[in-house]
Amino acid sequence: MDQAFWNREKETLDPSVRAEQILRDIKDQLHYVYDELPFYRAYYDEHRFHPDMVKTLEDFTRKVPVLTKDTLRLEQEAHPPFGRYLGFAPEDGLHVHGSSGTTGRPTFYLFSRPDIDYIRGVMAQALYTAGVRKGDIVQISTDLGMFMGGWGALWGAEEIGAACFTPGAGNAERHVRLMHEVGATVLITTPTFGLRLLDEARMRGYDPVRSPLRLGIFIGEPGAGIPGTKAALEAGWGIKALDCATTSEMTPWATNVECEERHGVHVLQDEVYTEIVAKDDPQRLLPEGESGAVVYTHLKRKGQPMIRFWSGDESRMTSEPCACGRTYPRLPDGVYGRVDDMLILRGVNVYPSAVQRALLEVEGLGSEHRIILTRKGAMDEATIRVEYDSRLAAGGSTPSPDRLDELMDRTTEHLRAVTGVRFGIEFVPPQTLERFDVKARRVVDQRSAS
Amino acid sequence: MDQAFWNREKETLDPSVRAEQILRDIKDQLHYVYDELPFYRAYYDEHRFHPDMVKTLEDFTRKVPVLTKDTLRLEQEAHPPFGRYLGFAPEDGLHVHGSSGTTGRPTFYLFSRPDIDYIRGVMAQALYTAGVRKGDIVQISTDLGMFMGGWGALWGAEEIGAACFTPGAGNAERHVRLMHEVGATVLITTPTFGLRLLDEARMRGYDPVRSPLRLGIFIGEPGAGIPGTKAALEAGWGIKALDCATTSEMTPWATNVECEERHGVHVLQDEVYTEIVAKDDPQRLLPEGESGAVVYTHLKRKGQPMIRFWSGDESRMTSEPCACGRTYPRLPDGVYGRVDDMLILRGVNVYPSAVQRALLEVEGLGSEHRIILTRKGAMDEATIRVEYDSRLAAGGSTPSPDRLDELMDRTTEHLRAVTGVRFGIEFVPPQTLERFDVKARRVVDQRSAS
Repeated sequence: MDQAFWNREKETLDPSVRAEQILRDIKDQLHYVYDELPFYRAYYDEHRFHPDMVKTLEDFTRKVPVLTKDTLRLEQEAHPPFGRYLGFAPEDGLHVHGSSGTTGRPTFYLFSRPDIDYIRGVMAQALYTAGVRKGDIVQISTDLGMFMGGWGALWGAEEIGAACFTPGAGNAERHVRLMHEVGATVLITTPTFGLRLLDEARMRGYDPVRSPLRLGIFIGEPGAGIPGTKAALEAGWGIKALDCATTSEMTPWATNVECEERHGVHVLQDEVYTEIVAKDDPQRLLPEGESGAVVYTHLKRKGQPMIRFWSGDESRMTSEPCACGRTYPRLPDGVYGRVDDMLILRGVNVYPSAVQRALLEVEGLGSEHRIILTRKGAMDEATIRVEYDSRLAAGGSTPSPDRLDELMDRTTEHLRAVTGVRFGIEFVPPQTLERFDVKARRVVDQRSAS
Repeated sequence: MDQAFWNREKETLDPSVRAEQILRDIKDQLHYVYDELPFYRAYYDEHRFHPDMVKTLEDFTRKVPVLTKDTLRLEQEAHPPFGRYLGFAPEDGLHVHGSSGTTGRPTFYLFSRPDIDYIRGVMAQALYTAGVRKGDIVQISTDLGMFMGGWGALWGAEEIGAACFTPGAGNAERHVRLMHEVGATVLITTPTFGLRLLDEARMRGYDPVRSPLRLGIFIGEPGAGIPGTKAALEAGWGIKALDCATTSEMTPWATNVECEERHGVHVLQDEVYTEIVAKDDPQRLLPEGESGAVVYTHLKRKGQPMIRFWSGDESRMTSEPCACGRTYPRLPDGVYGRVDDMLILRGVNVYPSAVQRALLEVEGLGSEHRIILTRKGAMDEATIRVEYDSRLAAGGSTPSPDRLDELMDRTTEHLRAVTGVRFGIEFVPPQTLERFDVKARRVVDQRSAS
């Protein structure tokens, strides 16, 4: 096994050679889905698209219609439970998983043995890129239920030959206790739960910096790509905190993964081809460096392959070289927003993740906040409710009004500098706001109520 | 693939030929653990036992000392985290699991790839015996955390080539909804949760008898071996309800498994050799049919093998033939009791001493309590009756409802964190409960009364 690479030749390939491979794979995959998967046949016929129309990568962006979560949900409702894009006999399925389905029926995924074997290999390449090695003890702190997050991590780590354990759902105390008893060296979880466990460890009298943990891989939401969050996780635990993950539809979902250089996520273009397109036009590829919507394509999965899946994520891409030697392009800031999460406040586009980043950079603030949306006339307004740091309230006392005034000025000013908006601020004492165990929901929408 | 058997020759072997194999395996295993595993070497030297002393199966029972959970816990505390009976280099471990650890630190299991491959095969034979086939959709309704239950089921079902899904921890509604949306044909869960899901299905307006479910495999606690519970599960769901499972230390834990004839669990003696011995003398084998303590031995596992593990379970054995054709002996009533005082509540092992410890750690509680056991249908339930602290009732007054509510929340939560079970709590004033002078009897058994 090469120390630095899972597969040196593949990972350091000349990008122009890789582009030729990708184009061949795209053409093969388009013909496969059109010939074999009735959903794609119908969808492409309806959009007057035919695989023969793609001669170049530019054609691919310009001519192939995108899929959305809604497309998939409607298809599965019409052809339950897996839709007409399964690609194998249902009795050859080995694992059923699903999207979180917070808006009703989840989208279901069925994985065949060949697809799982394929996914294992790609997840292993990705986790190896992040620094996981045989000999590591990998704590997977996500619920191993329908959600693909924990499963992909498990499969990849198993393939590398690391030892895995999963403390089970909820109960942060148990996660912290087991981390120490078992001696975890790698933590895979959401940034939210990574911060939650940090609080819990301190509360229980552990010194997180002295734990055997050396590496955190953060999935499921942006966070480790947000400088303030990354810094809080790294300093708090004494680890390298790496950003990873696309979305469960695109399993193997770790094809966006940071290497230990931590200059943004590498994009494993030879497995999941990734385009940055105009937010209002999925057929228009953006020039390198411009911020747009992320569209993903499975080049090799045969079961439920996604061709030009509109993820709703926002990012930008660069092909500047990385010191690690991998020749994949990068998303230098990871995925930093949701095209559809964006708030418009007094005419300014504001991403909740930008607010989070700004707050984590202000000395004297605690680790949890909410963005309270209200409506005044026809305009959306937002107030930030944020905890002050426990060190300001030593001995259970309330901080002096002077200190809070000064903190409010600094907070307002920094938020304005980062987001361009002047927010109202409310301070609350440490540990007042509910902590999230899995995914944070920090935007509180009170617009209809007012 | 043979329709009726996973491995016809093995499963229908002449019992006397099988006994010769078992004796050979036992001798090999004894020499292996004595030569290679320092814990066994020390333990056997201390008990003046040497593998050469075993010439017959009778010798094995008469001369080999048993292991208990306490033996393992002490060994792991002295040699953390896995004890000196691992059998492979720690870096060759692939999965870490653990016992529920209700009396403090759990016992940890580390599984190597060869052991997992071995476990997959035996779990497959067992689940195939229970009737699981390729083409089935298997719903595994247990938390896939540290506990081995769900994992063993998953590995065995994957090996058969059935499709598996795990709805994740808690949330009975989601389990019922997914059962219908995905179309589960087999349910693997505890008897308690199987009954809970039945209630939930009816409450949500599903007709459980008309679900695609055809088979339930019930693990983690006695239940499907108890006639009333089996009947309730079978009639309620319109399925065959089969009893299965030994204990997590003995993974592959499905070596006790019912076939579709449902005349008690078959004992896969050629994988886990099982003895029924006197409850007060582990060196005395009982005649066929007599009720005694169950002692288990791994014949083939090389990692953390258990040799004569004292399970604390009570059962009886018969070698009367079964109509299925398998020549394994059977426990005709499954495992129906516990030799010691451990309580099994909703599938979780709970020691009264752990409850006591947890209550003593909650600020605001007094010093005396009772564990009231009742029976709901065939399942044991427990309520904790506990005194609140005299300081909450200063001047003889009653504490405010708010304070008691808050105390109840903390008590419930801490008990759940320590024991894994959510207990009902009743508060009584200080000095209400009788004090004990010599031996405390805090478990109040009202099960026969209800």
